This record gives sequence, C-alpha cells and structure tokens, in this order.
Amino acid sequence: MLTYNFDSRLPLYDSLYKNIKADILQGKLKANQKLPSKRNLAQHLKISVVTVENAYAQLILEGYIYALEKKGYFVCALEKTNACSPQMGEIKFENTKNRNAFYLDLASNSICSEKFPFTIWSKLMREVLLEHNTQLLDVVTYNGVEELRTAIAEHLYYFRGISVSANQIIVGAGTEYLYSLLIQLLGRKKTFAIESPGYKKIAQIYHFNDVECEFIDLDKYGMSISKLRESEAEIVHISPAHHYPTGIVMPIKRRQEILNWADEKNDRYIIEDDFDSEFRFVGRPIPTLQSIDKNEKVIYINTFSKSIAPSMRISYMVLPYHLIEKFNDTLNFYSCTVPSFEQYTLAKFISKGYFERHMNRMRNYYKKHRDAIIQAIKDSPFGEKVTIHEENAGLHFLLKVKTQMADSELKQKAFEKDIKLSFLSEYYLNENNNTNHILVLNYSGVDSNKIVESVKRLSELF
Amino acid sequence: MLTYNFDSRLPLYDSLYKNIKADILQGKLKANQKLPSKRNLAQHLKISVVTVENAYAQLILEGYIYALEKKGYFVCALEKTNACSPQMGEIKFENTKNRNAFYLDLASNSICSEKFPFTIWSKLMREVLLEHNTQLLDVVTYNGVEELRTAIAEHLYYFRGISVSANQIIVGAGTEYLYSLLIQLLGRKKTFAIESPGYKKIAQIYHFNDVECEFIDLDKYGMSISKLRESEAEIVHISPAHHYPTGIVMPIKRRQEILNWADEKNDRYIIEDDFDSEFRFVGRPIPTLQSIDKNEKVIYINTFSKSIAPSMRISYMVLPYHLIEKFNDTLNFYSCTVPSFEQYTLAKFISKGYFERHMNRMRNYYKKHRDAIIQAIKDSPFGEKVTIHEENAGLHFLLKVKTQMADSELKQKAFEKDIKLSFLSEYYLNENNNTNHILVLNYSGVDSNKIVESVKRLSELF
Repeated sequence: MLTYNFDSRLPLYDSLYKNIKADILQGKLKANQKLPSKRNLAQHLKISVVTVENAYAQLILEGYIYALEKKGYFVCALEKTNACSPQMGEIKFENTKNRNAFYLDLASNSICSEKFPFTIWSKLMREVLLEHNTQLLDVVTYNGVEELRTAIAEHLYYFRGISVSANQIIVGAGTEYLYSLLIQLLGRKKTFAIESPGYKKIAQIYHFNDVECEFIDLDKYGMSISKLRESEAEIVHISPAHHYPTGIVMPIKRRQEILNWADEKNDRYIIEDDFDSEFRFVGRPIPTLQSIDKNEKVIYINTFSKSIAPSMRISYMVLPYHLIEKFNDTLNFYSCTVPSFEQYTLAKFISKGYFERHMNRMRNYYKKHRDAIIQAIKDSPFGEKVTIHEENAGLHFLLKVKTQMADSELKQKAFEKDIKLSFLSEYYLNENNNTNHILVLNYSGVDSNKIVESVKRLSELF
Repeated sequence: MLTYNFDSRLPLYDSLYKNIKADILQGKLKANQKLPSKRNLAQHLKISVVTVENAYAQLILEGYIYALEKKGYFVCALEKTNACSPQMGEIKFENTKNRNAFYLDLASNSICSEKFPFTIWSKLMREVLLEHNTQLLDVVTYNGVEELRTAIAEHLYYFRGISVSANQIIVGAGTEYLYSLLIQLLGRKKTFAIESPGYKKIAQIYHFNDVECEFIDLDKYGMSISKLRESEAEIVHISPAHHYPTGIVMPIKRRQEILNWADEKNDRYIIEDDFDSEFRFVGRPIPTLQSIDKNEKVIYINTFSKSIAPSMRISYMVLPYHLIEKFNDTLNFYSCTVPSFEQYTLAKFISKGYFERHMNRMRNYYKKHRDAIIQAIKDSPFGEKVTIHEENAGLHFLLKVKTQMADSELKQKAFEKDIKLSFLSEYYLNENNNTNHILVLNYSGVDSNKIVESVKRLSELF
C-alpha cells in the first residue's frame, strides 16, 4: 500500500496528491497499475476518505490517473520525458542599466522631469480617484477616453493650429506602439521613407516590424524630394517642425512638395511626427503639415512622454477621416493600452491649462539653461575651437569642433572620462555620411550647478 | 503698401504674420515680389519695427519669404496647391459602443469589476504617490519596474508553482501588445498554431501582424497532436489550464506530447496563455506547462486585465533564459508601455496579499453565482431542454439545447429580445465545424438580482 510522509505545511489532500504524482512521474507507479480504493487508502493512511477523494480528483483532472466505473483508479500511460525536474538556472546578465552613470551625459535627448509640477499632478490624480471611482475599472474604448481626446483636440486647436474632431484621435501607450498600429493600418508591405540623419529608433522599430525602409537624405530644407522620388517609398515618416538632430524646420515650399508627392497616388501617406515641437524657442510654433493637408494624406503623431515625463506612456495620433473609418472597421478589436486613470488625469492637466503653463515654464527654463551653457562655452578656451549651429533647435544644438581625432575616438576618450557624447555622424542611416566632428549637444543633461565645470571637462577632451 | 485689419485677440506680430501669409498663399503677393522694408511697413501700419521684425522672422522661418542682404525681403516661389484652405468634414460614425446595451449579455466573457476592492486600490495608489513621488516620472526599464516583476515572480511561485526569476518577466500593456513583441522576438515568418475552437481575437491579432496561422482542431484533451504534426507550425499558442470556450484542461500526457513536439526542433516554442486560470473552481490550480518544461520551450503569458479589471492594461510574460537574453540583445530599445504608477500600485496589491484575497473572494462569489444560475435553469421549464457541460470551466459553462433552430437564427431572435448570445459554433476557425446548439453561457454578465427573470427570458427564446 502507498505510504507517504505528509508535508505539514500543505493541506493533507495536496500533500497526498503531490506524493502520488511524484511516484507516477518517477515510474514507481506504472502505467495502468491499479491504485488502492479511496476507502482502503484512507484507512491505511489514517486520513479521511474525502481527502483521498480530493487528491484522486485532482490527479484525474490533470490526467495522471483515470477511473473505470466499478473497477477503481488506474495510472495513466505517460510520455517518456524527464520533465518532472526542470533545471533552474540563474539569469546571467544584469538588465538594469544605470542611466545616471555618467558625470555628464550629452548624448541622451531627455527632459528634466524635476521641473514637472508633480504636486499638481498628484492633486489631479486624487481628484480623479474621487470623481471617477469604480468607473476607472470600466472598459476603455479602443481609441481612449473621450475626455482626453477632447482635451487633446482643444489643445491642438489652440496651440498647434490643427482643427480636428476628438473622434479622429487614437490614444496609445507611446509612439512606438502607435507606429505598430499604423503599420497594421497602412500595410506592412508598404515601403517607408525615413530621414537620414534621424532617430535610429524609428528605423529599428520598422525593422523589427518587418517593414522595408528607405533612408532618404536631407538637404537644407529637410527630406530631399528628388531622393524621395527616386525611392520606392509610399509612406513618408518625417518631423517637419523640428528635425532631430539637425534642427531643420521644413519650409512651406518643401511641405507643399511633399504634400503634392503624396497627392499623386492613392496609397501614399505622410506620417508627421511632431515629437518635441513644444520645445522650439524662437517665434510662433510652426504650423503643421496636417493643417494644410486637404486630401487626407497626413497622419499627425505626438507624445506626452517627452513633454511631461518619460514614464508617462501616453501618445496619440490624428487620423484623416477615411483612415479613422478604416481603423474603426478593422482594428477596433484592440484594447486601448493606456490605463483610464492616467487618461483622466492628463485630460484634467491639459484642460485646466496646467500643460500649457508647464510647457511655457519649461521653454523659459531651457532657454536660460541653453544660453548659460553657450555663454560658458564662449567664455572658456573651448569657445575658440567650436562653432555653434542650430541653436534654436530645441533641447540640443550642434557644435562643430576643430579637431583631428575621429568621432569614435573622441567618444571613447569621453567615455573614459565619464562623459557621454554623440556625434551627428552617428545619426546617418545611409553610408554616404560625410559629416565629422559635429557634436549633438543635448544640454538638458547638464546639471545647472555644474555648467562651468562641465564645459571645462568637455573642453579638456579636445 | 500692405494694409491689414488686425485681429485684436492676437498679438500684433502674429496678426501681421497671418495676414501676409494669407496674401502669399492666395497669390496676392507674387513669387519674388519685394516686401516693404521693416521700417516703412511699421510707419505705414503705425506699429513698432520690432513687431514687423517678428512677423518677418516667422515668415522666413516657415519659408514664405526670404531676405537678401542689403536688398530686403522677398516672397518665396511656392508650389501650386490649394493647400491653404483645408476642408473640415464631420466624422460620420459613432464610435462609442454601449457595452451595457443588453438586458442580458451572455456573450461577453467579462468579469464583474464591482467586486474589486477599489477602496484598497485607491489607498495603495495614494501610498505610491507619497512614497515614490517624483520617482514616478523616471524612465522605467523596458521590462517593467523591479518591484512588480518581483511581486509577480513570488505570486507565480506560491500560486502557480512556477519558479522564475524576476529578470525573466517582461511587463506590457496587455497581452495583445505582448503577442506583438513575441512575434518580433520569434520571427514573423514563423507559422503559428492556434486552437480551433478558440478566441477569435488571437487569430485577428496574428492576422493583422501578418503572421501565418494554422487552426488546429481539438480533441477531448486539447490541441490534437496528430493535427499539429500535419501542420507546418513552429509556434503553438495554447491555453492548457483552461481552454476557452470548451473548458478543456489539458492532461499531463498531452502536455508531455506537446513538450516533446517542441523539443524536436530548435525553433519550436509553446506560448502558454494562462489567461483566466485564476477562475477554476475545482481542486488545486493546474500546474503549468512552464513548470515541467526543461528545454526552455515554454513562454508563459498572463494578464491582470481579466483578474482585476479590463481597464487595467497590465500583462506579463515569462521568457526562458535564452529568449530573455535574445530580447535583451535585440528588443530592449522598446520603452515599457505601462506607467510606473500602476506598476508600483499593482506590486503592492500583490505583495501585501490583496490580490490573492481578491481572487479567493471572486472564486467564491462566482461559484455561488454559477450555482444559483444552474439551479434556476434546472428549476425552470428550460431545464428539460438543456444539458449543462463543463460547469467547472470558469466564468462560463456550455449549455447544449434541444432545438431545431439554427444558431444564427437563435442569436438574431435573442438580439431582438435584448439578449446577447454566443454559440460554440462561432468559435471555430476552421470550416469543419459540426457543433450546433451549444450555448457558451458567460454567466458573469447575469445580474444576481435578476437570475430567475433572466433564465425565464432565455427559456422563452427556445
């Protein structure tokens, strides 16, 4: 008769079930072997019949034993495998990267979230908790909560000159996710044109989504129309208001040319990535391509991850009417990826004017910060070795340095001195890259109390 | 000389800029036409030179005019387009679906979020706000915050018998999103095997991600191994603990067979979708495939959208070591899609034991609710026309009805009576569907105060 020691930490039936299961897996109990009756086993082990019943029931459910009416319980024939003792290894890598590891990080295009009005944000969060309560648990429509879409539409109207309906807006957990939805909407077989130089991450996302990309060179007005025409591209992904890292603002003529290019064929579209446009410092915000598009060719996309905080995974896109209808017909089975709680909070933050006030404050802050850094560069011996370009480009500027060292060499040297640098040459996706010694200086990573020391250390590299 | 009425709601320079821009777009100012000097225009319009300067600067930036040194300002040659007056239409469809539109909804496999301990949840949220404060704005590593991954790993250990490291876990905004990451990780060219009958949404997601799927028939133990072997599939997507809607629990022999199948080739993997496994009512939870996999073939995936609330877009997957390394090498450029705030709150909810208590309470609630509904069916005249199957399957059971009407006819008739039904026949993805008159009764949609009346109305349909 089966005899076991019971693990006192487990319920009796569970302990019995585990013991019998182990015997079956180890082959101590053979295929089709008869098990003791429930009553006999209970008597033998001095436990209740119900306990044995529960253990047998679980073993039946999992397919370890079977019951034959009026005959009793038998062991199932299992597959030959050693599957009962999985090996436990240990993860061999450390996957948390310390992003604050450098004394000076000029390579990361990040914003300074210390300045975010967190007290207001948490006040709004508490308000949302009280006002919406259990409604926060309800299903959110695929495109996002209406309050947020309405607040975004109003914001776009007042601050970006875009007149759209809240129904044209789709909210998602980051632009990266929205790109993948766009690929599904427009078709993965399409060829996408992206800017070179440009954000490598956009190319990476398309690559891993198995979308073919052509990297189109820029001239001084942005993406070259002649190069675009030479390509097979049907979808263009550009940031006309504020190209990163060159800072190029696409002039109206080039915008019209790109719109005309798109108008020529039904399947051509323009993804207007307006990422970072909040951080221009000169003049009015540049009107969007979307606002001069009359043939439903432009998909406008923007994010709050940049303007509020990187942990805020809320982005949105504005689709032309026929595409929102197509989305609604084909992709509305997707659930909205942003929790309703964050959506309601952000809706309040925008509609009560906090977002605009925050943006104004940040623009002032960064402008002063940038001016102080540029002044520090001019005042230091480094000033004689460099020319500053595109100083209105937003949270970075370009610094042409007189040096004989290769960019890679400079980067390595900086790395050893605890400084992270990036060069314009790294942003090229095509081979025909002939820029050198142009530093992309993302100044938001400079501590405002360490400006002079930071410039000094930077200067010493060259 | 240019003469304009200024819009008193706008800053002067902005109004001037808009007027000149409109004249250029409408062709009143021609290409290469010279504009008045700043001083002259200022005198003429009785405004300051700085105002004209600002307007001209903005027009230059946007490419409407150009300046020639010592010669003055000139109009740029633009493309021919009517782009200045975009037409504004109105969205023609209503995209908010009222999910509570039915008197009785037996088709939606949803949970009852009223029972969620929202007071505790909001208390935890307030705690997280206080404790983490501005840390909530920081970048989250691509795989999710460590506290949550650790809490999930512990939960899996104690309640699902899975022993994994927190580093094997990747957190994402819903299983739908995680599927798309898995496709990128495993390769879009792979053929995926999915269960028929099964969740149509899984097939939809693969379809729109351009992944080829084969729909594999089930036998009474779950996915048929012989049919799987006949297919070209390399990746299997199954829910062995709790198949929807049949309620099949895959027995150990079939699990071993599927593991053996996967072991035969390097590129074969099993996606174990453990969705809904929390809602089994009989016996212990079924051990996972993941826990008996010794060759790193199983990817375990689960969600909190189902067990907490649909608006809670938090899911996770557990990758085998070599796949987490591959993910870390190739896809770690993706940002985590879940806000850190929800992640910290959920981590507390799990680690303080609230999640398990909530699950226990819900299991009791649903069990009672199900028993009451089954009793009401048995007590009504409807009881004689039906056989109940798979009553332990979770939040639904199958009801075989004696009727001559076609399933589609019944569905339509129910719809007219404000009742939403779904039949097993609708879940088949292959054509060889020979089930009929089997209702998938998702009873969580039945109001517990209306059970008798609901069963009466249901009965009257047949």
